[in-house]
Amino acid sequence: MQQHSPIPETMKAWVLANPGELRLVDKPVPRPGPAEVLVRIGATAVCGTDLEVISHGEPALIQGGLPFNRNFTPGHEYMGTVAGLGPGVDEFELGARIAVEIHAGCGRCERCREGMYTACLNYGMNYGEHDKGHRANGFTTDGGFAEYAVNHVNTLVRVPAGMSDEEATLIVTAGTALYGIDALGGLIAGQSIVVTGPGPIGLMSVGVARALGADPVILIGTRQDRRRLDIGRQLGANEILTVGEEDVIAAVQRITGGKGVHYVQECSGAPGALDDAARMVSRGGRICLAAFPKGPVLVDVARLVRNNIYVFGIRGEGRSATRRAAALMAQKRFPAHLVHTHSFPLEQVPAAIRYAGERIEDAIKIVVKMQVERNKPCQGRPS
Amino acid sequence: MQQHSPIPETMKAWVLANPGELRLVDKPVPRPGPAEVLVRIGATAVCGTDLEVISHGEPALIQGGLPFNRNFTPGHEYMGTVAGLGPGVDEFELGARIAVEIHAGCGRCERCREGMYTACLNYGMNYGEHDKGHRANGFTTDGGFAEYAVNHVNTLVRVPAGMSDEEATLIVTAGTALYGIDALGGLIAGQSIVVTGPGPIGLMSVGVARALGADPVILIGTRQDRRRLDIGRQLGANEILTVGEEDVIAAVQRITGGKGVHYVQECSGAPGALDDAARMVSRGGRICLAAFPKGPVLVDVARLVRNNIYVFGIRGEGRSATRRAAALMAQKRFPAHLVHTHSFPLEQVPAAIRYAGERIEDAIKIVVKMQVERNKPCQGRPS
Amino acid sequence: MQQHSPIPETMKAWVLANPGELRLVDKPVPRPGPAEVLVRIGATAVCGTDLEVISHGEPALIQGGLPFNRNFTPGHEYMGTVAGLGPGVDEFELGARIAVEIHAGCGRCERCREGMYTACLNYGMNYGEHDKGHRANGFTTDGGFAEYAVNHVNTLVRVPAGMSDEEATLIVTAGTALYGIDALGGLIAGQSIVVTGPGPIGLMSVGVARALGADPVILIGTRQDRRRLDIGRQLGANEILTVGEEDVIAAVQRITGGKGVHYVQECSGAPGALDDAARMVSRGGRICLAAFPKGPVLVDVARLVRNNIYVFGIRGEGRSATRRAAALMAQKRFPAHLVHTHSFPLEQVPAAIRYAGERIEDAIKIVVKMQVERNKPCQGRPS
Amino acid sequence: MQQHSPIPETMKAWVLANPGELRLVDKPVPRPGPAEVLVRIGATAVCGTDLEVISHGEPALIQGGLPFNRNFTPGHEYMGTVAGLGPGVDEFELGARIAVEIHAGCGRCERCREGMYTACLNYGMNYGEHDKGHRANGFTTDGGFAEYAVNHVNTLVRVPAGMSDEEATLIVTAGTALYGIDALGGLIAGQSIVVTGPGPIGLMSVGVARALGADPVILIGTRQDRRRLDIGRQLGANEILTVGEEDVIAAVQRITGGKGVHYVQECSGAPGALDDAARMVSRGGRICLAAFPKGPVLVDVARLVRNNIYVFGIRGEGRSATRRAAALMAQKRFPAHLVHTHSFPLEQVPAAIRYAGERIEDAIKIVVKMQVERNKPCQGRPS
Repeated sequence: MQQHSPIPETMKAWVLANPGELRLVDKPVPRPGPAEVLVRIGATAVCGTDLEVISHGEPALIQGGLPFNRNFTPGHEYMGTVAGLGPGVDEFELGARIAVEIHAGCGRCERCREGMYTACLNYGMNYGEHDKGHRANGFTTDGGFAEYAVNHVNTLVRVPAGMSDEEATLIVTAGTALYGIDALGGLIAGQSIVVTGPGPIGLMSVGVARALGADPVILIGTRQDRRRLDIGRQLGANEILTVGEEDVIAAVQRITGGKGVHYVQECSGAPGALDDAARMVSRGGRICLAAFPKGPVLVDVARLVRNNIYVFGIRGEGRSATRRAAALMAQKRFPAHLVHTHSFPLEQVPAAIRYAGERIEDAIKIVVKMQVERNKPCQGRPS
Repeated sequence: MQQHSPIPETMKAWVLANPGELRLVDKPVPRPGPAEVLVRIGATAVCGTDLEVISHGEPALIQGGLPFNRNFTPGHEYMGTVAGLGPGVDEFELGARIAVEIHAGCGRCERCREGMYTACLNYGMNYGEHDKGHRANGFTTDGGFAEYAVNHVNTLVRVPAGMSDEEATLIVTAGTALYGIDALGGLIAGQSIVVTGPGPIGLMSVGVARALGADPVILIGTRQDRRRLDIGRQLGANEILTVGEEDVIAAVQRITGGKGVHYVQECSGAPGALDDAARMVSRGGRICLAAFPKGPVLVDVARLVRNNIYVFGIRGEGRSATRRAAALMAQKRFPAHLVHTHSFPLEQVPAAIRYAGERIEDAIKIVVKMQVERNKPCQGRPS
Repeated sequence: MQQHSPIPETMKAWVLANPGELRLVDKPVPRPGPAEVLVRIGATAVCGTDLEVISHGEPALIQGGLPFNRNFTPGHEYMGTVAGLGPGVDEFELGARIAVEIHAGCGRCERCREGMYTACLNYGMNYGEHDKGHRANGFTTDGGFAEYAVNHVNTLVRVPAGMSDEEATLIVTAGTALYGIDALGGLIAGQSIVVTGPGPIGLMSVGVARALGADPVILIGTRQDRRRLDIGRQLGANEILTVGEEDVIAAVQRITGGKGVHYVQECSGAPGALDDAARMVSRGGRICLAAFPKGPVLVDVARLVRNNIYVFGIRGEGRSATRRAAALMAQKRFPAHLVHTHSFPLEQVPAAIRYAGERIEDAIKIVVKMQVERNKPCQGRPS
Repeated sequence: MQQHSPIPETMKAWVLANPGELRLVDKPVPRPGPAEVLVRIGATAVCGTDLEVISHGEPALIQGGLPFNRNFTPGHEYMGTVAGLGPGVDEFELGARIAVEIHAGCGRCERCREGMYTACLNYGMNYGEHDKGHRANGFTTDGGFAEYAVNHVNTLVRVPAGMSDEEATLIVTAGTALYGIDALGGLIAGQSIVVTGPGPIGLMSVGVARALGADPVILIGTRQDRRRLDIGRQLGANEILTVGEEDVIAAVQRITGGKGVHYVQECSGAPGALDDAARMVSRGGRICLAAFPKGPVLVDVARLVRNNIYVFGIRGEGRSATRRAAALMAQKRFPAHLVHTHSFPLEQVPAAIRYAGERIEDAIKIVVKMQVERNKPCQGRPS
């Protein structure tokens, strides 16, 4: 491993204990192999799926599943600096500030061979005799609630100069939003889009869609989402609709002169979301599903067929969308930082997760900082 | 209108009477306008949606709907000869044998402008002061259970030399099947596909998929479909699975070594079909919906998202797929004629529709012939 | 025809006389047919191809060619207001401010059926017994150096509120630029692009590419182009390279760290442009050709093959790119108005054309205004 | 390494000596690393680019180039059996019969990440401290004129049961042909295509295009190509045109009723081929370049732009086309074996290359067999 300064033998890291429980331990600092990089973590954002990983001990995303892993470190939305380089890595220099994508495909299954690395058919195959080299840090390989992590070189994205650590943790979220818009075709300038659900991915979808010229951008949330909807307006939404206060489907039809929108980016996971989306798009329109309800829901499939509607389930942040999203953020096309509301130090990961899970103080994006600058007033609430 | 031989003033045509009722009347022979052709109909196949049109007086496909139209002629899968040419038409010569596509878009809405004419935003707008020139013969404009019809020149496809009238009525069905495969990406040589539902579109999907090199082609039906499944094998299915006799999802996983298929073309309209399809495709796989259940059904949306699955509702036979399908049939890539089981003369349209609706004598595709050759043993049963 | 106020019987219009000569005449005001609109012209920009039309009496773009047409009105980049509506047109209301696209395809050839209406196979077929309804105003049907013109409804684009007439004539130019970027794939955020040739299309390409997040945007011109290059910087170019002052290919390689750019949009028509572009793009890169040299030029085809380079010749402003470009301009994503340098009244079309052809006073875009506001200081030079 | 039977320490292999010279030596048998397989070679076909590699000591395809490599083994079109498995490889079992693709991308550059592994930006980077893991056996890493080779698992394709070794060496050639048709859009059923140049790639293009339903398939060659043109007809060409005996451009226009073909697949490398292709395709048509002339040639770029023609330079056999081509061959869609004309034993590689280079005895595809069955009459001429 190529490195500047001495790397310690051990590090602080949160690991899964019993289901629903995290424990702060000392763990060996991992070492990067070929095509890998050692990252000194600067900040890690809390994502909704972290809560699932912590309670189930495995990502729900893995079909088949892994045994509950008591020494596993979650956390997948992080940034930091390059602290060590594995053999053959010269794409980044030591000390470079980087953010991460989550998925490093195996590079050898059919999906990876066609560039769809977030749908790697060897998902989770990183261990034992059938190690295919797949990594999804924070899901199947150790993640970011720790001082160091090893990342495949493919998962690194340069942080634009002048961007805060907190905003940099949002790059991967913006990458997911952009991947969804890629799935919708990507040529959305002057086309209408509805974004349903003003969570972090929904808000980044608003920012990205507007940056690419979509018009109008209609954001839909609930009465509980008022703060988020306000931020959505600042990120570029032309129209804000509130479920429960109005018939949002009728409102979309009104705004579009009865034609419906070209696209819906579904980020709410509400049970009726797909069905509603199908009633908001025009004939021949397209729907991206970036969120999902827990169980099966009723869907009027006939409407999809009769109206030649295409529905794109997306997972992760493929097609190098994270890098393209970072470029939009570097160009300051939308104020992504508004989505960050609270910061906590590494020691307080459980509190950070509780704030995120229970939306305490209207929390949107919570960031865990490895080194909180204590003499600087914190943007969020370090509690 | 340019014409060879005298065109009569009136013709025999079946028209909608009360809901569920058809009446054989004398009607004026229509005259083609610019970009239109007068077709002397040779044969018209019965399709499941004909039954809907006849019982509801309007195609279920029209959003908003039209008033029950008592003088409307249904029938949309037909072939015949060019009997007259409207102004400016020289793409076809008088006497040419042609089959039809259904949808002639308006040519001026956003969808038509991008080539998606089967999702025309001016669907049904053919009348009165806002006439946009859309036609869907047998759905919104007069169709094929008659001696003559007017067709937009875009909806004509040459019948390959040597093909029977009956087989020619299946060209549009094959076009729908191919349009579905287009939606799936089209590059299916050596890729695995499941076709669910061995109705005419499903069987044509088997034929087309195999012609394009898909391997394996897995056809799924029920115990009632035994005759259809046998024909499916002759059309190129490598594997036949029977719902109720085996766990078809497990069987698909077994056939594909646990990976699932690349594609599912759903042609059954069964309530659980989309959900089952999502359990048959591999991660990153694609599903085309060419059929649909009547009401809302339970769908595990989470599976679509977690597995990056794309779902394509298709309507009609867009992207000029009908012409490409006709070319495959001209090359005798699959024995489409096997799908035709019964023929009836024009006078017996109600019987033809009853055979189709109730699957009498295991009927698959019923064809109404304008002039049944009485001294030739009929391939089907003219009753 | 539906109309507000009385339309005069005749109008002033410039028409082709002998080759190279224009004559101002009185001509009947045309009447819109079905799907057509009568436009009262507000302003018409001069384009390089106008000069060709005027000298050759026909657009070079027509294969086969038309006879020299002595009564034909050129001019294809114009804007105005809707003065009359043909039967069935309700997409626009009387008085609406609109700009135009050039190409209205026939709607019935293979290309139109797939949405490629600028490559209509019935190009020029607007006359006589084989009238297919194709229009390319200013090329094959009467254009914009006149008080009125008839346009197919497909060719109208709403002018954003608050946009000057002069800027509105640039919408179609921006549409061409965007169509080129569509051809390149369109997902250019954070990707590098070279634009060669800072004429109007090149400059609009800079603006559009930057608006969509391309980074870096490298503009290349000659020493004679200094004014244009300065405007290019204001439109969003990150890097300006000057042929003759430096080795521009080496400079592109330097800027991109030796990898080459993702895309080149070629707008210069220089003899070596394609070859140079192939040496500027990375392996697997893409080149759009929006301009061309007059005669055959030497091309190193081997480089295209060895490096898996795709080259997209584009014609016109297809895929409704003009509407999407107008949306970017409505959002003020780039200061398109800078490209407009001079204005002339209708009476002075020959002078306007001379200024454009000879680049008098560093002219870039010259606009002919039907009614020059005489008491307002003109942005350009009304002479 | 996992293996069945003992692998010898050394093997016979041809290596580059002085430019233009090959030497048969004993070399260590290579050992497969992670994701790699040891192949016991059964047969290796001679390709035109082998001659270049042998004379220049490096593939012309490498930009920058490598020093003349005196111990390098050329040969890239081969088949064999799996003799050893590197760590983590379970996609193939020992003893499996496989053919190869050439390109194994690095898996980490931008192109590999989007699935374009044949345009890998780390082409040739397999050595020393910046080893990125790229392999192109026979070009930049040791190839197939030897008893064993190491292959990345991505480059293996199963040989269909019952296919001869000789035919199996053609799988990669068919893969290149199919990759070209992919570039053209792939939906070619019922569409017209010209294939120029009846060499192995051209002939495979005929077979693949016809298998996918193209109609007509027009093959163009010279008078010297008579044997090849005859085989082209057996592979599915509907029309054969001979340069020098007729005006082939006029003939294509005649066959297509003056419209031109939808596609041209250029496999001749003739100096005027691109220009001729542009005169054969319809407006909006597409050209794939799978071959190239040595030096710069005159091209009428204006025609490409005016007619909205897209040109796709292709390199290699990307998008897993080789696997899909193998499936078409397994289904016996075209008699690929006809293209194989001569066989030689390993000891006679120089003679094999001479036969290929000089087209001795009308040779088309020459195959070097590791073990020629001496008591069986050889299909070609073992000399």
